[in-house]
Amino acid sequence: MINPNLLINRDDLDFLLEDVVGSASLLERERYADHSRETFTAAIDTAYKLATQFFAPHNRKSDENEPTFDGEKVTTLPEIKEAVKAFAQAGFLSATHDYDLGGMQLPITISQACLALFRAANVGTSAYCFLTAANANLIRAFGSEDQKRRFLPALLEGRWLGTMALTEPNAGSSVPDLRTTATPLPDGRYAIKGQKIFISGGDHDLGENIVHLVLARLPDAPPGAKGLSLFIVPKYRVDDEGRAGERNDVALAGLIHKMGYRGTTSTMLSFGENDACIGECIGEPGQGLRYMFHMMNEARIGVGMGGTMLGYTGYRHALAYAQERVQGRLPGRNDPATPPVAIIEHADVRRMLLTQKAYVEGALSLCLYAARLADDEKTHPDAQERETAALVLAVLIPIVKSWPARYCLAANDLAIQVHGGYGYTREYPVEQFYRDNRLNPLHEGTHGIQSLDLLNRKAGMKDGRALELLHQRVRDTVEQARATQDTNLTERADTLDAAWQQLRETTTVLLQASADDIMEGSANSAYYLDLFGHHVLAWLWLQQAVAAQKLLPQKPHLADFYQGKLAACDWFFHTELALMEPVHALLRNTKSHALNTPATWL
Amino acid sequence: MINPNLLINRDDLDFLLEDVVGSASLLERERYADHSRETFTAAIDTAYKLATQFFAPHNRKSDENEPTFDGEKVTTLPEIKEAVKAFAQAGFLSATHDYDLGGMQLPITISQACLALFRAANVGTSAYCFLTAANANLIRAFGSEDQKRRFLPALLEGRWLGTMALTEPNAGSSVPDLRTTATPLPDGRYAIKGQKIFISGGDHDLGENIVHLVLARLPDAPPGAKGLSLFIVPKYRVDDEGRAGERNDVALAGLIHKMGYRGTTSTMLSFGENDACIGECIGEPGQGLRYMFHMMNEARIGVGMGGTMLGYTGYRHALAYAQERVQGRLPGRNDPATPPVAIIEHADVRRMLLTQKAYVEGALSLCLYAARLADDEKTHPDAQERETAALVLAVLIPIVKSWPARYCLAANDLAIQVHGGYGYTREYPVEQFYRDNRLNPLHEGTHGIQSLDLLNRKAGMKDGRALELLHQRVRDTVEQARATQDTNLTERADTLDAAWQQLRETTTVLLQASADDIMEGSANSAYYLDLFGHHVLAWLWLQQAVAAQKLLPQKPHLADFYQGKLAACDWFFHTELALMEPVHALLRNTKSHALNTPATWL
Repeated sequence: MINPNLLINRDDLDFLLEDVVGSASLLERERYADHSRETFTAAIDTAYKLATQFFAPHNRKSDENEPTFDGEKVTTLPEIKEAVKAFAQAGFLSATHDYDLGGMQLPITISQACLALFRAANVGTSAYCFLTAANANLIRAFGSEDQKRRFLPALLEGRWLGTMALTEPNAGSSVPDLRTTATPLPDGRYAIKGQKIFISGGDHDLGENIVHLVLARLPDAPPGAKGLSLFIVPKYRVDDEGRAGERNDVALAGLIHKMGYRGTTSTMLSFGENDACIGECIGEPGQGLRYMFHMMNEARIGVGMGGTMLGYTGYRHALAYAQERVQGRLPGRNDPATPPVAIIEHADVRRMLLTQKAYVEGALSLCLYAARLADDEKTHPDAQERETAALVLAVLIPIVKSWPARYCLAANDLAIQVHGGYGYTREYPVEQFYRDNRLNPLHEGTHGIQSLDLLNRKAGMKDGRALELLHQRVRDTVEQARATQDTNLTERADTLDAAWQQLRETTTVLLQASADDIMEGSANSAYYLDLFGHHVLAWLWLQQAVAAQKLLPQKPHLADFYQGKLAACDWFFHTELALMEPVHALLRNTKSHALNTPATWL
Repeated sequence: MINPNLLINRDDLDFLLEDVVGSASLLERERYADHSRETFTAAIDTAYKLATQFFAPHNRKSDENEPTFDGEKVTTLPEIKEAVKAFAQAGFLSATHDYDLGGMQLPITISQACLALFRAANVGTSAYCFLTAANANLIRAFGSEDQKRRFLPALLEGRWLGTMALTEPNAGSSVPDLRTTATPLPDGRYAIKGQKIFISGGDHDLGENIVHLVLARLPDAPPGAKGLSLFIVPKYRVDDEGRAGERNDVALAGLIHKMGYRGTTSTMLSFGENDACIGECIGEPGQGLRYMFHMMNEARIGVGMGGTMLGYTGYRHALAYAQERVQGRLPGRNDPATPPVAIIEHADVRRMLLTQKAYVEGALSLCLYAARLADDEKTHPDAQERETAALVLAVLIPIVKSWPARYCLAANDLAIQVHGGYGYTREYPVEQFYRDNRLNPLHEGTHGIQSLDLLNRKAGMKDGRALELLHQRVRDTVEQARATQDTNLTERADTLDAAWQQLRETTTVLLQASADDIMEGSANSAYYLDLFGHHVLAWLWLQQAVAAQKLLPQKPHLADFYQGKLAACDWFFHTELALMEPVHALLRNTKSHALNTPATWL
């Protein structure tokens, strides 16, 4: 079973927030004037307490007792409802909202740190909370005053829950091909008709109503993305006073059973089977996808954080196991009469642990850095800094979505391996983390889709200025590392500087190749995403190392922790970054395309 | 659900057997004089038919309906019993045994090809068959005439099933630390007492008896491996006539629930709780581990083949899905008014398929090559060739066990990714393949254990002569490739030649480092295993390419198939082998050890 003491290393979270992304500097902003280090800490403490108390205990039980559907009603574990209620009551559904909307007015950085703990404790249950929060955020951003008045209070109190209903059986990665229709009714509302699939939280018994945000197409809409509008479609119709009443024509066509994430219902929904499904349009027709994309950065930071935290808690469990489990003897000291050693003494176990540490702590710094950029984009007092943050974040977003999904899943794989045969059993939580995490490379834009976004849109964004701004931040870290005059850090700085120069050159080659022939140029984009991601992570590891080096003499009680940061940075450079070297040649060599292999040869 | 038409590409199996490992040449041997190409083919056809008819149909059902234990009795799906019965009746339990023992006297190569099909269809159910066959093989090899007479007929008819009972709660990777005791009784038999864990097939309702082969320790035995003896411990005691009678004191302490492989019971067994567990010794006391190791090569080829076939059928399913599933448009041709394309047209999907092909078809050639070596070791008319085969196989065995376990699991991961969100659902079989395959890097020697075997025992075996003999075979392929005078193959040959030279140099460095300090020298052994494995696979891909190149003009109806082989070979060299380049430096650099990171820093 999951051990709630192993969700995260709190020293690490504090270090990353305070000493790496500098959360205290957010306090200087007017919006956070009423906050303090203490209120930030209190929010995280509360999240930790709730995650431990209400989320972690049923993580395995949820996996083993999936929601059921008897044809009439979906039944979920009672623990899920309690957890969602506790989450809502503590105010986390509106953690970043304004005080006057009942929110905590927390920075995104702190809010994401809080949410990370729920993700580590129970991704399945926390998904209901996050979907509801995202739904409410969207209504808040684009809904009419009337819609906000009628829908937001119940959503933010957790009495109603929310979904995002985009995907259809024939429109998954290609959302713009969706076919659900919205036909205007005389009263200004719309008749919704169509099928949706993979709708998380699409039905359950956790609240009094479910508010679907549905992408659909008006009768005269053009094909593709520009023809999509966004509709509020509640399960129970909502009157002028914001009260849920009679049933809307939204039917559960079935539950989808998954490898992991089993606590979250995944549904096939049928809208308007009896031509009685009524929705109301949010904002302007034709802007539906744009509205959805408005929330995309935060959604993708959320996915990145989800993958990260599954990897993170897996690492903590593997570390604890390796310290306790005794097995075998060291090479060259094989006398069977001597006692066996804790497996953490075995070099290969140590390697697997250090690799996990490099992945998961690196990924956490990436997600928090991205959250900080999202804060700067919204609340930095300087307009130019806001634009810079937006552009740097735009480049990083495909990495944030994809790198943790891939490498923290790899960490989960290693956590199983550290546990040996026990790791394959359902008595230990690591196999569930691995199954749960396998969703992350698939949803919210697959790995391949993200790689095309990075190469074909972000790398050349604003004539390359976005990438240049990111590179400038890398150079800043390089300078900070050199300024320490520490031999190791200076060496890492030189390596990083040269590596980024090489990344820029490879990018130039690829962008030129894409300009000549976009199929050819972007055929190996998945490798580019991995390469780019490792360059970002190496940079962020050097950031961590610089901070750790500085604090090492100041806080001797954390010496092991800081030494661990320096060691993980070294490891990432010596191993992970070094192993990426041949990817440059692979990307620059146009002969190395799977594209050149006709489909009939496979 | 698994599609029984997608277990394997039969053209590929025929090509590998006939044109790559040269199975027909086995017919020249006296032992196989009564066989012919037709009997080989008939055996494979029968296996295919039974796998399709009796194994594939309940693969998912077995996963969803695990065996249950009510405290008295284990209940399994009736389909499992039928499948085991069909397998036994067709003679596959004794496929390689002598005619006069009721066997088919098939070469190991052909037998492994047959068994591969059962593995692809249903690893869970086939495990009962393979364990029984291995158990019978061991009794046949080391049992007394009396034991063979009493146990073999029922085992080979599938009326009784067998297990291998090595692992204990505190002796997993470190088998020699096991504590189960065997105390001599006046009648020459032994009282067995102890706990075993992770015993596959340790209890069930599939036959009339279960024959455990138990490693245990005599009272005066020395500590470690030399103190282990092997015992036959049946669930129901077996009389002089080979009849099962009263219950032996072997109790099921519980079933272990796993991530995958759910159709196979994994058990905790209690021997002698009431001091009434009677076993009989096989062969000489103190030789238990040696007897087990005698079967080890075939067991490890079996694990390699298991990983391979899960990857292989996953690839075939992904390929079929990619041909059918329509989604999105090609980059640069994004007009939403145009029809979407089959996803196999997307470059990244093509890349994922080609990578899977390179992994799984490469792994299959590796396992069949190893099986052929096992045949040569046993039946080659020339004594020196037998020794050569034994040494080459010894070096390859850790690769055979580990490479498919790792890379065909990676293929399963890609098969899920090709399916998109659907791949994560239990409606499609790829997620089960992924879960089932995750066992393979753990059992029969973990990845780390295998890497230590490769580096510390095999690489320097017989003063490096074993490795040199393998390298000689690589050079033979290099020469064959050059002799084609084909530009591409000559280029590949040069690359392979140089790569192997480099591998030898890295090996020399590591062996010297290990001689100086075995902890230091072998600390990165897991990377060495991956590096070595990729060098072996590159060699075997060139072998396949040479054969395909030769056949291409001769068999035009298979032109696409042969072109696919050439393309996969190119891909493996350009991508997989090329990406291994920095591992040499990593291995030679003693600074890059996780070992240098104290446990307290993690």
